[in-house]
Amino acid sequence: MDLEELEARAKELLGPGPYDYIAGGAGAETTLADNEAAWGRLRLRPRVLRDVAKVSTTTTLLGTELPSPIGVAPSAFHRVAHPDGETATARGAAQAGALYVVSSRASMRPAEVAAAAPEAPRWFQVYVWAERSITTDLVAEAASSGYQALVLTGDTPVLGSRLRDARNAFTLPADVYQPYEPLSERTNYLGPAQDPSVTFDDIAWLRELSGLPVIVKGVLRGDDAVRCVQAGAAGVMVSNHGGRQLDGAIATADALGEVAEAVGASAEVYVDGGVRSGVDVLRALALGARAVLVARPVVWGLATGGTDGVRDVLASLHTDLVLAMRLCGAPTLADCSADLIAR
Amino acid sequence: MDLEELEARAKELLGPGPYDYIAGGAGAETTLADNEAAWGRLRLRPRVLRDVAKVSTTTTLLGTELPSPIGVAPSAFHRVAHPDGETATARGAAQAGALYVVSSRASMRPAEVAAAAPEAPRWFQVYVWAERSITTDLVAEAASSGYQALVLTGDTPVLGSRLRDARNAFTLPADVYQPYEPLSERTNYLGPAQDPSVTFDDIAWLRELSGLPVIVKGVLRGDDAVRCVQAGAAGVMVSNHGGRQLDGAIATADALGEVAEAVGASAEVYVDGGVRSGVDVLRALALGARAVLVARPVVWGLATGGTDGVRDVLASLHTDLVLAMRLCGAPTLADCSADLIAR
Amino acid sequence: MDLEELEARAKELLGPGPYDYIAGGAGAETTLADNEAAWGRLRLRPRVLRDVAKVSTTTTLLGTELPSPIGVAPSAFHRVAHPDGETATARGAAQAGALYVVSSRASMRPAEVAAAAPEAPRWFQVYVWAERSITTDLVAEAASSGYQALVLTGDTPVLGSRLRDARNAFTLPADVYQPYEPLSERTNYLGPAQDPSVTFDDIAWLRELSGLPVIVKGVLRGDDAVRCVQAGAAGVMVSNHGGRQLDGAIATADALGEVAEAVGASAEVYVDGGVRSGVDVLRALALGARAVLVARPVVWGLATGGTDGVRDVLASLHTDLVLAMRLCGAPTLADCSADLIAR
Amino acid sequence: MDLEELEARAKELLGPGPYDYIAGGAGAETTLADNEAAWGRLRLRPRVLRDVAKVSTTTTLLGTELPSPIGVAPSAFHRVAHPDGETATARGAAQAGALYVVSSRASMRPAEVAAAAPEAPRWFQVYVWAERSITTDLVAEAASSGYQALVLTGDTPVLGSRLRDARNAFTLPADVYQPYEPLSERTNYLGPAQDPSVTFDDIAWLRELSGLPVIVKGVLRGDDAVRCVQAGAAGVMVSNHGGRQLDGAIATADALGEVAEAVGASAEVYVDGGVRSGVDVLRALALGARAVLVARPVVWGLATGGTDGVRDVLASLHTDLVLAMRLCGAPTLADCSADLIAR
Repeated sequence: MDLEELEARAKELLGPGPYDYIAGGAGAETTLADNEAAWGRLRLRPRVLRDVAKVSTTTTLLGTELPSPIGVAPSAFHRVAHPDGETATARGAAQAGALYVVSSRASMRPAEVAAAAPEAPRWFQVYVWAERSITTDLVAEAASSGYQALVLTGDTPVLGSRLRDARNAFTLPADVYQPYEPLSERTNYLGPAQDPSVTFDDIAWLRELSGLPVIVKGVLRGDDAVRCVQAGAAGVMVSNHGGRQLDGAIATADALGEVAEAVGASAEVYVDGGVRSGVDVLRALALGARAVLVARPVVWGLATGGTDGVRDVLASLHTDLVLAMRLCGAPTLADCSADLIAR
Repeated sequence: MDLEELEARAKELLGPGPYDYIAGGAGAETTLADNEAAWGRLRLRPRVLRDVAKVSTTTTLLGTELPSPIGVAPSAFHRVAHPDGETATARGAAQAGALYVVSSRASMRPAEVAAAAPEAPRWFQVYVWAERSITTDLVAEAASSGYQALVLTGDTPVLGSRLRDARNAFTLPADVYQPYEPLSERTNYLGPAQDPSVTFDDIAWLRELSGLPVIVKGVLRGDDAVRCVQAGAAGVMVSNHGGRQLDGAIATADALGEVAEAVGASAEVYVDGGVRSGVDVLRALALGARAVLVARPVVWGLATGGTDGVRDVLASLHTDLVLAMRLCGAPTLADCSADLIAR
Repeated sequence: MDLEELEARAKELLGPGPYDYIAGGAGAETTLADNEAAWGRLRLRPRVLRDVAKVSTTTTLLGTELPSPIGVAPSAFHRVAHPDGETATARGAAQAGALYVVSSRASMRPAEVAAAAPEAPRWFQVYVWAERSITTDLVAEAASSGYQALVLTGDTPVLGSRLRDARNAFTLPADVYQPYEPLSERTNYLGPAQDPSVTFDDIAWLRELSGLPVIVKGVLRGDDAVRCVQAGAAGVMVSNHGGRQLDGAIATADALGEVAEAVGASAEVYVDGGVRSGVDVLRALALGARAVLVARPVVWGLATGGTDGVRDVLASLHTDLVLAMRLCGAPTLADCSADLIAR
Repeated sequence: MDLEELEARAKELLGPGPYDYIAGGAGAETTLADNEAAWGRLRLRPRVLRDVAKVSTTTTLLGTELPSPIGVAPSAFHRVAHPDGETATARGAAQAGALYVVSSRASMRPAEVAAAAPEAPRWFQVYVWAERSITTDLVAEAASSGYQALVLTGDTPVLGSRLRDARNAFTLPADVYQPYEPLSERTNYLGPAQDPSVTFDDIAWLRELSGLPVIVKGVLRGDDAVRCVQAGAAGVMVSNHGGRQLDGAIATADALGEVAEAVGASAEVYVDGGVRSGVDVLRALALGARAVLVARPVVWGLATGGTDGVRDVLASLHTDLVLAMRLCGAPTLADCSADLIAR
């Protein structure tokens, strides 16, 4: 599947405001661009003459078996992209066998999204708002509707500076639900303030609140990853929020190795940011990721094809990963080891 | 604030001669370009899950408390940019809480600039002309009108080669005051000759002349910085004169670390050159700068909005710095440490 | 000879479908581009004042003396480029004194190609299809028609993803023979499935089957090269299949040194991929290659000039190599040593 | 002086054939381009607060005092550029106080060039032709007409491949004298064959033949430089023939440091190739060159202004060098030391 062509079609369908809201990054968008470029800089050292007749991409994430290490990273307000919103994403991901991490800023309630694909694996991404009841209500609903883990976003004590949205004067369409809608009149999509005082201690708070394992998203350093694990995190997600928070932040491909090495076997490590092909997924696996998540390509699939579009993007990436594994002489995920990366 | 857009507006207002005089650099302008690029090459390693509810940018410079480490670097002849000249810059800087380093080549006398914002912190930049009385008169006036330090420019024994000005045949407008106006008929803005025999010994000379602490500006090497301190300097400013002196000189972002390490706690280290965002300011702080100065963006603010324009540029950079500190998990300037820079 | 101009002429003659089939690579074609770029990155350290009156490019490959280390890499279906197909390539190579490695996917039977230049040195490239009889038939025919070695392609357990062919909906012209034609109706040039379970053990299988020495093509790692030799290979060819299999694979110029060092004197090492000049050939020799193979330029010669075109491309590269050797002070292939490469 | 503008004017005056003959390089011209780029990659670490009131560029070359380390590198057939040919170059160089290295392929006899500026320092560049009498005649004439050294070109056992000249079908105008004119009818400017068997032993041969010190030009490696000195050379000139011989050869800026270090105090080291500014000259001095030679800019000066044009280009570079030395805090050539180069 030609993801650039897919994005071009989505851009045309969505128009500049919604498109830029999804595609854009913070500041001068250097991190946004570097995320993709950094995977491309990694040259592969494929193996020859391995038996790759049977390829298995089966893995477990926090003990749950999944057919693929490719998942859907959280992203906000899918009804901006398609009227069916997160329910379409949930169904498409379920059909592709992909984990779906639903956003706190979804345009549907967690229970509603869960009901769309009740058997599918799903995690819930958590923002902590200054008005903590918004968060606790969402977490309680997620915990009671079958979400299997919480993904605490650690890189957003405040929102980054999104120049495209400012230029477009972008606001959410009136019919897009927001979890904090009743709170106040808003002038844009930013919603009420985040809580900038969240710390490592809130990992335990969320775990106790929900009874669920907690993953910290946004980790870009080995020392931070270790502190997350010491504070009770079951995993860390290497992420720079798709280049939407701190412009100038290191690309996730450049940070992943350090984090994976620091964490070792003490927790699971995932990554998102700039992944655009099965070869990129394999690169991430080789650097130590247990799961690799994508957001924007999934949203382009959603915008252009609803449930089917989501499924097709994920299925295409999976097919592409299997091909890359075969061509690398790596029939299992365990074979996707660091020696596949040059230097 | 979109600084590129601001510069474009200033360019249109000013016309090519004045615009190029301010914007241009020496020779092929490789250092001019590299100054900006070098900050951009530094990738950040932000921290997650730190309490950044309260962010403090308060610092002291030579013992004086300031609300922000962002200051205004010296640049010449502000009346080229705006009729109110340096008085507007002084007022705008004062409103933003920013240190203002007034140039020896200002288009107003030091006392006049001081009177525009008498309570605000200000330093005086010193050129040493072959006709030393020009310098001693200016320094005496600065000392008696409340300037708190002298900034001796060490990188200008002679002026660099500014090709844009040659091509534009740029000369100062007749109504722009120059400190050495009475001396001679001049054909351009260069004024009388610099004294090319200034050495480290002149640090003590200036200190005794003025009773003020002396900072050396233009330092790009650790060994030179140490010699400045040994000769009595209270601080050094890492600078290549905004790429206007030696084309091919190292970018300040690439020189800052070496200088800061060599100086250690023996003196204060500041930097200017190519800083265009709050993230750049944070990068400079992380590499060891105690203050970070900007010139051209301030002049674009001056050209387009006078006092308010200066204030708005500085306020925007400060807001941007606070955002960057929050997103890096660095609530104080002391938290802006070297580990935030990748590699 | 201006190879870019030659390619432009070939492109015009062939039209987009056939041209792209030959010129294209896998995925985003980053490896395709990097193959050429990587040779260009290697800077040479020529020697002066050596007697280069007599230059010898004579070498032996697996014991057979050849006048030049430049050979023709295997590539598929030469009748796509010219009606005379592989017989023209064989005659042109023979006239230039170049080894020709005939492809399993040739558009003529191995015996037919051999008959076109019966005295010339030739090797036979081997794909292993799931239907192994296709392979064993071809190998038997090659062995009985004077091919001197088998070149087992190790990087193609499945075919890579060629986006240009998909976009062009490229299929082989009906009159182009394929070795597996009788097997089934096909919709495109891919033919029946490869056998993805080929391993190092198949080196011995092929050797026994044919009585010929076996070379493994597609090796990009030192450890794999050693395993090939331990499994009985007489040589390894450093190759990424001209960027047509795993997009993102390391350029052959970047992998060659490691492979040559790992193999040492235990076997011969050859290379292909992105070689476009005599200087590139010399770079490859300096990094440890015993023979250097080219495919696309030969096919452009074939498309534009049949037998003569093939001969002229190879002769031009040889002339160019002799010039480069003279200018490097390297009158023999043994003088093309690693110290000629900077850093 | 704007050298790019000067070249543009020369290009217009000369027309494509002669212009390309002078401007072009070998092969794909990567070395030609890299020569200039490599100087630009070297970032400078200027010193502050040095007394640079008096700057001296005086040096000695092989014991002869010269006012400047900037000289004219040998280049062929100046009558292609200007009717006065090498006599104009000689006079212009003399007026600028610059050493002139006259080419064996000059369009005037060595004695005629000497007579144009009899007091000026001059060296004679030596090609060795297969017909050695051409060389011995020229050398004898040079020795008897006051040339002070011979510069044996070591990088031209045969001529490089100049694609521009082939495309332009460039031949020397009929009225341009060549040293080997009487020998034979020629179809182009290449003249009779070089002797490809010249070795280190010919250094002594030339010294004995002429009684003059011998410098080897074209050295790009430390080990070769040492061998030249051991064989009796008084100096080596780091050069890749302006990118006209081996395309892919290392840029002279990248080779100079190694050569200077290997030679140490045992001989003098000079450099040419891509020097386009006084800052480039200073970079070369800092890397260990005792003299820095330029060819193409001098020829553009010649083409556009004859004697005056040559003088002005050289004078401009010298002024530019003095400025760069002042801005680096380096008042003498001895102060142009390696610590001025970053990293």
